[in-house]
Amino acid sequence: MTRVITLLTDYGLRDSYVAEVKAVLLARAPGAVLVDVSHDVPAGDVRAGQYLLARAWHRFPTGTVHLAIVDPGVGTARRALAGAVAGHCFVGPDNGLLSALPDTARWIDLPVPADAAATFHGRDVFAPAAARLATGTALEDLGPPAEAVVRSPLPAPRWDGAAWIGEVVYVDRFGTLVTNLPGDAVEPGVRLVVGDREVGPLRRTFGDVDRGALVAFVGSGGTIEVAVRNGSAGRLLGAGVGTTVRA
Amino acid sequence: MTRVITLLTDYGLRDSYVAEVKAVLLARAPGAVLVDVSHDVPAGDVRAGQYLLARAWHRFPTGTVHLAIVDPGVGTARRALAGAVAGHCFVGPDNGLLSALPDTARWIDLPVPADAAATFHGRDVFAPAAARLATGTALEDLGPPAEAVVRSPLPAPRWDGAAWIGEVVYVDRFGTLVTNLPGDAVEPGVRLVVGDREVGPLRRTFGDVDRGALVAFVGSGGTIEVAVRNGSAGRLLGAGVGTTVRA
Amino acid sequence: MTRVITLLTDYGLRDSYVAEVKAVLLARAPGAVLVDVSHDVPAGDVRAGQYLLARAWHRFPTGTVHLAIVDPGVGTARRALAGAVAGHCFVGPDNGLLSALPDTARWIDLPVPADAAATFHGRDVFAPAAARLATGTALEDLGPPAEAVVRSPLPAPRWDGAAWIGEVVYVDRFGTLVTNLPGDAVEPGVRLVVGDREVGPLRRTFGDVDRGALVAFVGSGGTIEVAVRNGSAGRLLGAGVGTTVRA
Repeated sequence: MTRVITLLTDYGLRDSYVAEVKAVLLARAPGAVLVDVSHDVPAGDVRAGQYLLARAWHRFPTGTVHLAIVDPGVGTARRALAGAVAGHCFVGPDNGLLSALPDTARWIDLPVPADAAATFHGRDVFAPAAARLATGTALEDLGPPAEAVVRSPLPAPRWDGAAWIGEVVYVDRFGTLVTNLPGDAVEPGVRLVVGDREVGPLRRTFGDVDRGALVAFVGSGGTIEVAVRNGSAGRLLGAGVGTTVRA
Repeated sequence: MTRVITLLTDYGLRDSYVAEVKAVLLARAPGAVLVDVSHDVPAGDVRAGQYLLARAWHRFPTGTVHLAIVDPGVGTARRALAGAVAGHCFVGPDNGLLSALPDTARWIDLPVPADAAATFHGRDVFAPAAARLATGTALEDLGPPAEAVVRSPLPAPRWDGAAWIGEVVYVDRFGTLVTNLPGDAVEPGVRLVVGDREVGPLRRTFGDVDRGALVAFVGSGGTIEVAVRNGSAGRLLGAGVGTTVRA
Repeated sequence: MTRVITLLTDYGLRDSYVAEVKAVLLARAPGAVLVDVSHDVPAGDVRAGQYLLARAWHRFPTGTVHLAIVDPGVGTARRALAGAVAGHCFVGPDNGLLSALPDTARWIDLPVPADAAATFHGRDVFAPAAARLATGTALEDLGPPAEAVVRSPLPAPRWDGAAWIGEVVYVDRFGTLVTNLPGDAVEPGVRLVVGDREVGPLRRTFGDVDRGALVAFVGSGGTIEVAVRNGSAGRLLGAGVGTTVRA
């Protein structure tokens, strides 16, 4: 069976790092189908990596192995993990990157071979584990059960009695602000406030406003997003990850 | 049979959007071979997307499905299309992006499911259609014939009685100006004028001039290009898409 | 058998060039698995391309074909090469890009078809040759033996009687300085000097120093690297390719 392996890293595409990881995967799991989620996670930004993984993983076919490496603590005492849930497998550092997965996930501690490069566990620890999972090795055969895995989930919105209070959790390449306010929690006519700036009522899409205008809508990830048609909401509003949003 | 699906978008590689599209493709068309044409089309630049698709599609194997999404009108009344010509299939928005294909192409209107995200037809409308085409569904089974498809072809050069008048239609990452003047229409000794600047006679390649010098040649797409060896013709000449070129 | 073909170019990912090369590969070697090493080699930087290829090629499965195109002399009299060593095949220009391979490599001269675009041998000369190798054609069937292939290996370190003298050979996207000093040649307690700045003794990894601090370690390529945790050593030290390093 052909297994899909996805890759999510902050390695960038300029150097040979991603290729070295893929070489290990193809050498040890011939026939695996490799799919990049992104390699342009900002360096060391575990939270951005977590968000991207959370959006993407569940859309891949059952049986997919997800290799996620945003790992500022590589080579230190932080643990290496492999896990499984909902028919998908996951490999990555124990630093919160994998926190967005369901609580029912099972986790094991990956042993770190003595000859692994201390700065490149992606190639020498995580990729070999992903290749084993992709070729049918059972999760439990990769290491002992992991206790007390780091959980650092994205912030949840709260109801303050009058409104939902949330925040921006991601800014995409278009400058669109992705919030953690679920689209189905707010009334369609609600007026959104980002920082101290009121944005109009929810629309369906960019094209519903003029060029350069602010627009809020339920985004493709299911939460409210704020954009500027043909522009950047992040720049226009001076907002970014952590900016408060009320609805 | 393994089918190739190409992807051309302005989604960029930083976010999860391309991966979400690929997840849908692999979940619905297992075994499909996915090839990126580019995801760095300038945001909303339908014309640049059209140029890149025109250059690339016909070089892929017969049976390839081309998924092209530069879609500033996503979620509005603009139609969604699928088409076929010369043994290739195409899926994308009806905004001129697909205008470079032969006139003999057949087109159908893709229905938009009610639960499609209004800002992400790439994932929820176009990718499912591409997967169906890649797994052998006939074009006509995807929707009713489309009438009056938007045609917005790249500008054609004209002969003014003394010279060919064309324009720059694309600037590549090296700053090379790609014109719409066919290489076989002009005499080899012709002197090219870009804007009001005369460029020397046609050469074969960059290496035929000194570093930093301007050079014109018949480019790999069959039309005349103007470059600077180890530099940017766009910057040196202050020229870009739309700049007039005479030969 | 499914063969892997790797691609290393300075074409960038914005234009259609990489896709045109991949189209030729898939049309002529159906089923080949294409893996990008990098397409963001700085334009015309043969040395950077050589370094990246040297790091990556040997980790791919035996039988892999490596297509390497950083080719400022495209279309001039520089030769086109194909080669084989250690069960891997290589295709690229004869400009030193392939110098990092073992001396035992066999090389042949690739003929350049008359209709090849003078500025795009990647598509019209190198990709067809790579496809033939990937589908089982013997190297010797592609052209006559090549004499006096250009050798331009990366600089080697030397022992001056008191210390190893080397240099920075690559700077990665994190600003980490990769030197040519082999990790196993220096004593663990050695104090490294980059330019005229002393860096502390070798550590294991980034996480062994505070944020913003300089750190030297044996990198994942086996040579000494100098980094700044959460920063750029290149910027902090004003160092780059060619900067002298003593250990």
